[in-house]
Amino acid sequence: MPASVWPAIDGIAYGGDYNPEQWPREVWRDDVRLMREAGVNLVSVGIFSWALIETSEGVFDFAWLDEIIGLLHENGIAVDLGTPTASPPAWFFAAHPDARAVNRDGVVMGFGSRGMASHSAPAYRDAAVRIAATLAERYADHPGVVMWHVHNEYGVPVGEDYSAHSQRAWRIWLQEKYGSLEALNAAWGTAFWGQHYGQWEHVGVPAAAPSVVNPAQRLDFARFTDSQLRACFVAERDAIRRFSSLPVTTNFMANQHHGCDLWAWAREVDIVSDDHYLWAADTEGEIGLSIAADLSRSVGGGAPWILMEHSTSAVNWQPRNVAKRPGEMARNSLAHLGRGADGILFFQWRAGRSGAEKFHSAMLPHAGADSRVFREVVDLGAKLDRLGEVRGARVQADVAILWDFESFWAQDLEWRPSEDVSHDERIRAFYERLWRDNITVDFALPGHDLSGYRLVIAPAQYLLRQADADNLNRYVENGGTLVVSFFSAVVDENDAVHPGGFGAPLEPALGVRIEEHLPLRAGDTTSISFGGDELRADVWHEHLVLTDAEARATYVDGPGAGMPAVTRKRHGRGTGWYISTRPDAAGLAAILTEVYADAGLVPLDAPAGLEVVRRAGETDDFVVVINHATTDARLALDGVDLVTGRTVAGTLEVCAGDVAVVRAPRTAPGSGR
Amino acid sequence: MPASVWPAIDGIAYGGDYNPEQWPREVWRDDVRLMREAGVNLVSVGIFSWALIETSEGVFDFAWLDEIIGLLHENGIAVDLGTPTASPPAWFFAAHPDARAVNRDGVVMGFGSRGMASHSAPAYRDAAVRIAATLAERYADHPGVVMWHVHNEYGVPVGEDYSAHSQRAWRIWLQEKYGSLEALNAAWGTAFWGQHYGQWEHVGVPAAAPSVVNPAQRLDFARFTDSQLRACFVAERDAIRRFSSLPVTTNFMANQHHGCDLWAWAREVDIVSDDHYLWAADTEGEIGLSIAADLSRSVGGGAPWILMEHSTSAVNWQPRNVAKRPGEMARNSLAHLGRGADGILFFQWRAGRSGAEKFHSAMLPHAGADSRVFREVVDLGAKLDRLGEVRGARVQADVAILWDFESFWAQDLEWRPSEDVSHDERIRAFYERLWRDNITVDFALPGHDLSGYRLVIAPAQYLLRQADADNLNRYVENGGTLVVSFFSAVVDENDAVHPGGFGAPLEPALGVRIEEHLPLRAGDTTSISFGGDELRADVWHEHLVLTDAEARATYVDGPGAGMPAVTRKRHGRGTGWYISTRPDAAGLAAILTEVYADAGLVPLDAPAGLEVVRRAGETDDFVVVINHATTDARLALDGVDLVTGRTVAGTLEVCAGDVAVVRAPRTAPGSGR
Amino acid sequence: MPASVWPAIDGIAYGGDYNPEQWPREVWRDDVRLMREAGVNLVSVGIFSWALIETSEGVFDFAWLDEIIGLLHENGIAVDLGTPTASPPAWFFAAHPDARAVNRDGVVMGFGSRGMASHSAPAYRDAAVRIAATLAERYADHPGVVMWHVHNEYGVPVGEDYSAHSQRAWRIWLQEKYGSLEALNAAWGTAFWGQHYGQWEHVGVPAAAPSVVNPAQRLDFARFTDSQLRACFVAERDAIRRFSSLPVTTNFMANQHHGCDLWAWAREVDIVSDDHYLWAADTEGEIGLSIAADLSRSVGGGAPWILMEHSTSAVNWQPRNVAKRPGEMARNSLAHLGRGADGILFFQWRAGRSGAEKFHSAMLPHAGADSRVFREVVDLGAKLDRLGEVRGARVQADVAILWDFESFWAQDLEWRPSEDVSHDERIRAFYERLWRDNITVDFALPGHDLSGYRLVIAPAQYLLRQADADNLNRYVENGGTLVVSFFSAVVDENDAVHPGGFGAPLEPALGVRIEEHLPLRAGDTTSISFGGDELRADVWHEHLVLTDAEARATYVDGPGAGMPAVTRKRHGRGTGWYISTRPDAAGLAAILTEVYADAGLVPLDAPAGLEVVRRAGETDDFVVVINHATTDARLALDGVDLVTGRTVAGTLEVCAGDVAVVRAPRTAPGSGR
Repeated sequence: MPASVWPAIDGIAYGGDYNPEQWPREVWRDDVRLMREAGVNLVSVGIFSWALIETSEGVFDFAWLDEIIGLLHENGIAVDLGTPTASPPAWFFAAHPDARAVNRDGVVMGFGSRGMASHSAPAYRDAAVRIAATLAERYADHPGVVMWHVHNEYGVPVGEDYSAHSQRAWRIWLQEKYGSLEALNAAWGTAFWGQHYGQWEHVGVPAAAPSVVNPAQRLDFARFTDSQLRACFVAERDAIRRFSSLPVTTNFMANQHHGCDLWAWAREVDIVSDDHYLWAADTEGEIGLSIAADLSRSVGGGAPWILMEHSTSAVNWQPRNVAKRPGEMARNSLAHLGRGADGILFFQWRAGRSGAEKFHSAMLPHAGADSRVFREVVDLGAKLDRLGEVRGARVQADVAILWDFESFWAQDLEWRPSEDVSHDERIRAFYERLWRDNITVDFALPGHDLSGYRLVIAPAQYLLRQADADNLNRYVENGGTLVVSFFSAVVDENDAVHPGGFGAPLEPALGVRIEEHLPLRAGDTTSISFGGDELRADVWHEHLVLTDAEARATYVDGPGAGMPAVTRKRHGRGTGWYISTRPDAAGLAAILTEVYADAGLVPLDAPAGLEVVRRAGETDDFVVVINHATTDARLALDGVDLVTGRTVAGTLEVCAGDVAVVRAPRTAPGSGR
Repeated sequence: MPASVWPAIDGIAYGGDYNPEQWPREVWRDDVRLMREAGVNLVSVGIFSWALIETSEGVFDFAWLDEIIGLLHENGIAVDLGTPTASPPAWFFAAHPDARAVNRDGVVMGFGSRGMASHSAPAYRDAAVRIAATLAERYADHPGVVMWHVHNEYGVPVGEDYSAHSQRAWRIWLQEKYGSLEALNAAWGTAFWGQHYGQWEHVGVPAAAPSVVNPAQRLDFARFTDSQLRACFVAERDAIRRFSSLPVTTNFMANQHHGCDLWAWAREVDIVSDDHYLWAADTEGEIGLSIAADLSRSVGGGAPWILMEHSTSAVNWQPRNVAKRPGEMARNSLAHLGRGADGILFFQWRAGRSGAEKFHSAMLPHAGADSRVFREVVDLGAKLDRLGEVRGARVQADVAILWDFESFWAQDLEWRPSEDVSHDERIRAFYERLWRDNITVDFALPGHDLSGYRLVIAPAQYLLRQADADNLNRYVENGGTLVVSFFSAVVDENDAVHPGGFGAPLEPALGVRIEEHLPLRAGDTTSISFGGDELRADVWHEHLVLTDAEARATYVDGPGAGMPAVTRKRHGRGTGWYISTRPDAAGLAAILTEVYADAGLVPLDAPAGLEVVRRAGETDDFVVVINHATTDARLALDGVDLVTGRTVAGTLEVCAGDVAVVRAPRTAPGSGR
Repeated sequence: MPASVWPAIDGIAYGGDYNPEQWPREVWRDDVRLMREAGVNLVSVGIFSWALIETSEGVFDFAWLDEIIGLLHENGIAVDLGTPTASPPAWFFAAHPDARAVNRDGVVMGFGSRGMASHSAPAYRDAAVRIAATLAERYADHPGVVMWHVHNEYGVPVGEDYSAHSQRAWRIWLQEKYGSLEALNAAWGTAFWGQHYGQWEHVGVPAAAPSVVNPAQRLDFARFTDSQLRACFVAERDAIRRFSSLPVTTNFMANQHHGCDLWAWAREVDIVSDDHYLWAADTEGEIGLSIAADLSRSVGGGAPWILMEHSTSAVNWQPRNVAKRPGEMARNSLAHLGRGADGILFFQWRAGRSGAEKFHSAMLPHAGADSRVFREVVDLGAKLDRLGEVRGARVQADVAILWDFESFWAQDLEWRPSEDVSHDERIRAFYERLWRDNITVDFALPGHDLSGYRLVIAPAQYLLRQADADNLNRYVENGGTLVVSFFSAVVDENDAVHPGGFGAPLEPALGVRIEEHLPLRAGDTTSISFGGDELRADVWHEHLVLTDAEARATYVDGPGAGMPAVTRKRHGRGTGWYISTRPDAAGLAAILTEVYADAGLVPLDAPAGLEVVRRAGETDDFVVVINHATTDARLALDGVDLVTGRTVAGTLEVCAGDVAVVRAPRTAPGSGR
């Protein structure tokens, strides 16, 4: 077990990926000088260096790595040392051509890019453990190394593997899960379409087939894939722990890639770390950022985490890679910090001249130190340097939104009722309203203890186990407010429709029977009558039968015309809401206003575009305030702005585009967990 | 030969696919009870049950099948017994990996979905015949079994096969067709692009290639594919006939899948049966339904047929699966019946909880018997129960529309003049106008005896053999009215342009030479001057030279400006019309008004949205009336409404969304065939 | 070496591809009669005839070829004899299955289409040389053969090959290029993403991989592919030269396919020949045509060239194949002639009834000789017959636009800043303005001697070697005017960003530093302030820092707001302009107006739609005038219209859609090269 969860550096961690192997040695000293100028105190090294460390199988060359770690250490810059297992060397694939990953169509993945080998190939597992152990043994006691960074973004660019190694591991995994073929046949419903298995040897990976492949099989394959990737991580972590007690992490991709069940992964790492990149087409990328940050905090149980990668400006892999505007990098960084990050790192320190990511921005851009970007990097370093006391403070939330990777995997399979239904879209829609109201949100699984939350929202809980439904029903019975959006509680853990029909497991809390889904045609929009208002809604209607609920909105037109659209039930000491359609943003706001009233929630009184989050320290609170608007803003607050050192008496003024972090009196303990 | 063409059940057949193997035995008794409540008298059993009947190669387990057939029989529900050969078991593919189908890119199709093996693999042929014969032997004399249902939807989801078995069968097929390589080289035009074959061993399946593959080769491969699938059916059918004289069918997909030449298939089955599903994006899906129904009747030579599958509400495999509105299921069912169906069956009886089709509606939905859908199912059963006397009555049609799968196959190959030209679109456009005019239509091949029709329309006869063109010319000469739409009579049976140029074979009847195709750019629209009116037209112009026709419309603008657009020729005792562009719906209506006058056709005087079809029984006619509109409608008619039992004296009133079936005095024999 | 560069025919060459093997002998005499009627004097024969000449390996049948060449010769029609190596016979692939090309996903390309074998397969190289040599030996001294036409459209439909033969050749090519693995690792930047190679055997072709493959590797693979294709050509050419001194060509696809570096190819052929087809969706296809023609002339150093293929009317391989309007074929033909073509040939003589291109137009269409197309073909033949004296005259240009295939290859790789940036689009935009101004353009490489041009434009020189940048800087210093558009001079020959940042190599001439790219979101448009006007601009902004330039336009809004958008620097005796955004056509015109002033260029005073190009003969000039407009036009000119024989005194009148070729007094030698 690690001696200390947080790496041995002072204050907020600041830095980025550093790839000295791409540069001649004369550049290294320049790098270190500029890092010091920028206040960098932590860099990730060695993430793609396997071929240069293990130059052929079992032959190691540590000279350059020794030198650069030493140089960094002499200059007070700590190292987060990577295991380079996300990109095995050319010699590895030449020696083990069977260890290459294979896609659904049977295409064997070639070399010359990045991406792991078959996660089930014994040769890969052995080689990965060997390099991880060798690095750990060598650097465990090096004072410049403070943390281990295993692999890189598991599951990206390739997670699924249809190779023969995967096939073998898959059958073993299934045998362990199901014990008997009878259990597998029952869980997968193989009586449908004549898929019954009489021998384990006949069970295959869900490769390309003439039509849709058994969804329960594919759902299990998603679980298997996640499990195999995690097993790779665990094997490396355990190899490291044989030599080192430093904290071990691997960088997640919260809200960017859904292939890894981060709830399970977070239990395996010592510190959660996350990579986050704005989606350029989104003109309010700061909302997606907040989701990623809140999710990173939530999967780690609320503990401070590290933003392992983000970008100083544009990325390079999107269709149009929009550069960040002046001040945006600082706003992004502070938003992560406000939502629990105690480290702000970038990909990458110095822009690489060659390769696939040469157009990715960096702390030190192609234009060099005499540039807007580097000046802002230096400025951000100075800001963070003043925020050391925030470290360790905890974010409190009164609201939980359900986020369940397993449900995403199931919902994303083929042949669902409407391709216009998206879990990501619905989660964002609900989250966005709460974000604009400055009501802080945790994410949670439906089986979690939710009793600390005033409000729980299920925007897209397509797959819901009966036991988890029971948990939600109890939550309401005990006084909670629950909001469930359409296409939830549809199937069980095997993607089988619940006995009793769609939504049946939540009938206790919601008081509705969902008789039929009524998807709309492309582009059709409709109205629902809510109070005296007509709200716009599209994509989906349902035929609801109320068993014990009041209709709070009714369909005005469309296939549901005349039937209930939004319902509310008092259940025990709590309240269950059901929204059977997709209201637009204004409509959702109107409905949530009433939900807030049930839950006892009050939006923060703040100007539009002002993002406010509060972290609770040992004795004080720290209020992070970010002005995304193009006009100056005011907020009622008392305390000291740590960024400027100024006292805030009654009113904080934040210029357009600016940020503030105010040490404020400790609020009464929130009702969040 | 079967003793009786129609299965031994009374009145109109009613029921659906029944998959008891997906459910525990306690559900079976509930099923039978509810079937009786709904008036179900025929169910299809065993269609996907291979793995549960033949549990390993040559080992059979009939216990469960004996039990369920017995239970159904005791309750007066007849069984249409399936051969399960559309989905071979896992053990089959494990034992015969070479029997898997292969796609054009060489990807071998995996297990876990549905879809037949390579239709040319000897192992598959043998296994299919074995299971079919074994079932026939066991159940031939079971009083509960009344009909055989071979396989399922041949050609879907996969028809083409590029495996080594297919390769071998393909050469044999070609040798039988052509006799000599010289004949093949000539037919395929292999002098083009240097494709001459000097040895049979060099002739391959038309797999992925650097550019477009020889179209005559691909056309032959489509014929071969159809032929191989049909050979599979014939082998099973003949195996069954060794033991049973019950009628044998296989379910077609008329107007949904064009891979099977249903004219040829219909000659092999004892009863035509068809599966039909609405296309949800089409807000007038009832028109596509009518096409499918008329085609099902036509390929069977006018004999009554069975609607083997349709849906009570939504399907699950379209992008947005729109549920049927109240009453729509009954309207759909009666429309099929009006167009010749004597059986109305659904996929499926009880909604399956698991698998790829769990979101497909059923007679008994996930919501159970206390549901709108099941109540409508019961109501429909009661209606059909009153319509037994309609059985066997024949539909008469004065108009034939040409429908030629071979022409579709040819037209759908690559590198045609414009991707905006679609045979489906043109057939629908002409059909739709006749449907709105309540003029009943047969479909026909251009080589058929057409003399019984007042009007023959060729909306898209791209491929037209010279002999068939001669038949059409004679039809006109002998008094018929023929309408030919653009891009017809372009190529012969080898996809070679006719000597003399596009359309030359029809010059006798039409009196035009088509000098050049003039496709329009995307989105361009133009006008033609017709009588005093300007009609809108798009997609296609032609450079026509009139050799012996009058110009009835002229291009106003676009590439054809000033040249003839629509022509008419008196030829012998008949008339030939040519429409060289794509008029919009109003334009086509205007032209067809004049065509009707030539053909002596009069649209029915009925309100918009009222569908009226007449079946001629032994002594009476049965007029099926369906009100698709949202307002009540009236129709001049005398007789008795069999649905309500009420007398109709002069005027039938049909409420919005409702149906009627009126026993009416026998009309004079129609002029249709 | 060939005795004479121009084939031994009088005047302008006229004709097309002729495929007599597709037709019975009775058609041949008809063909020759009609060719004479049309004035055809050159046809290309044998391009796809391998299977009919070499009927099995090493067995030749020349009888039919002897006969047709003889027949043509007797009728005064010369033959451009093809080597048929673009489409090896079926027997070749049966004997050498390993010689089939393989695509990036590993799919082996099948037979039945067209397209060469693996360009690296020894069996293919040997067979191609054998057939070429055998043909050359047999026909070298045939008086009817005047020219050799090797292969067909190298690189189309397939250029890249990922087969084992390609893999082997690729390593040899790399070893020759780099000498050492160290050099390769440095050039490719393999330190990025862990791609370092320790053994040559590990270096593979850039096949499908989990993510983006190393761009330097892919760029080299594009060079290798081009080089291998060219080696195939050279091998055939040299085999022919062993027997024949006639000129050898191969037909390029200038401005249609970028896979072949035509600058290098033109050095290998005796005469440049080009295939050009209008892009039907482009309503001003004549501009794209002019680009192709100017490029064909430019790669050949200004020498007259042959338009080897174009179409009389529609092609067949585009989504919508728009037919040419009356007169358009003549306008197209004369435009090519005006830009340097001394031969006007078509694909093809007679429309083929069978195969993939049956809907491609021909000189003799399916409709036969009594047709608009054939009448225009005869008319064009008569026109060209009167233009013999134009042959050999040279086009002069004062402007060069940079056109660099290598830069295109690099720019088209994945993960560039914005997918809205296109080299083709920018080149067309600049060219189009000059075309409308009737300022004739050459194309050039950045390393060429540019001193003869008043103006050089770099619309899209993404890849720019330092030495070539030095050449451009010197060009300006010595008095030239240079216009550089955004996203130029970004990377070096290894796709590595230039030291100093984007655009650094051109800072001497331009006086700007490009600190950051600022791509716009999809659909966003902005304004720049230029003089007193606001110009529209989209797609791209940049953060420019002026080191020694004046801002001529400033961003009004968008990410660049307030910063310079267009700059100008006086450098030495010349001027360097930089345009950091994408102005619309009007905006570009406004900027170029000022550029013209710097360069001393004056647009021709001619009505819109009138295309005017001048060829300088020995003693006279020939002014080709094409009226693309729908109204008659006048142009100030003196001389004799060779088409009509009429004297032009002061004013030439050209009817709408018509053409003229005026022998005019020799102008003073242009400043072009």
